[in-house]
Amino acid sequence: MTSDFILDQRLKNDGEIIGELDLCKIILVNNAYFPWLILVPKRNYLKEIIDLADQERIILMEEISYISSIMQDIFKPDKLNVAALGYIVEQLHIHIIARFKDDKAWPAPLFGKDKTTYKDSDYIALSSKIREMLN
Amino acid sequence: MTSDFILDQRLKNDGEIIGELDLCKIILVNNAYFPWLILVPKRNYLKEIIDLADQERIILMEEISYISSIMQDIFKPDKLNVAALGYIVEQLHIHIIARFKDDKAWPAPLFGKDKTTYKDSDYIALSSKIREMLN
Repeated sequence: MTSDFILDQRLKNDGEIIGELDLCKIILVNNAYFPWLILVPKRNYLKEIIDLADQERIILMEEISYISSIMQDIFKPDKLNVAALGYIVEQLHIHIIARFKDDKAWPAPLFGKDKTTYKDSDYIALSSKIREMLN
Repeated sequence: MTSDFILDQRLKNDGEIIGELDLCKIILVNNAYFPWLILVPKRNYLKEIIDLADQERIILMEEISYISSIMQDIFKPDKLNVAALGYIVEQLHIHIIARFKDDKAWPAPLFGKDKTTYKDSDYIALSSKIREMLN
């Protein structure tokens, strides 16, 4: 039932889809300043977490937790940010970001801040590392 | 088991505790620019959502959804923001904010932006309205 899911073009532009869970696609945001994944539930026309069915919300929480653990294992951040915002892209998506006390935005939120893309080889290496953890 | 829970002083300073659910205390942030609640799980020494036990994470998702529905019913926002950030206050807390296309920060995040307190009577009226919905 998810084959007709359409990912918002602006989320596609944020980075590659590096994996897929029961409910969500996983995007690795191509911003070298912050380790940053986005979970996108494969459901069309949803805007809010509460637009998901009860059972899907529980799965979402499990997937947020699973991805958060992977982020902690790989990056050992000072803090994880978990956020469903969606001012610009309405399609429901959840940011999971590893933050460090010496990162470019700390202690402020990074949303809407500067971006710089990874070197291609770094992006590929990081995707592979996360993909491995997913398996 | 929650009687020894200690709420971070900076969260206390954000506004009054206007209600309590199974897992979380509910704070109404005293910032008249944005309808803004904070959920704080009544557990000491937690920093991340994944520091909660599995079952507590499910309860957290239910409470986020419950409070989100109340926010939607009262404020009819263009978008809800749901975010666990915690750069400044480490104690785990989740922001739930009703956002409008004509609000003071849209389309940017509001964190770290200007604040203005409610008139006392407005703050009390809003607290009462939310408390009623909680019952």
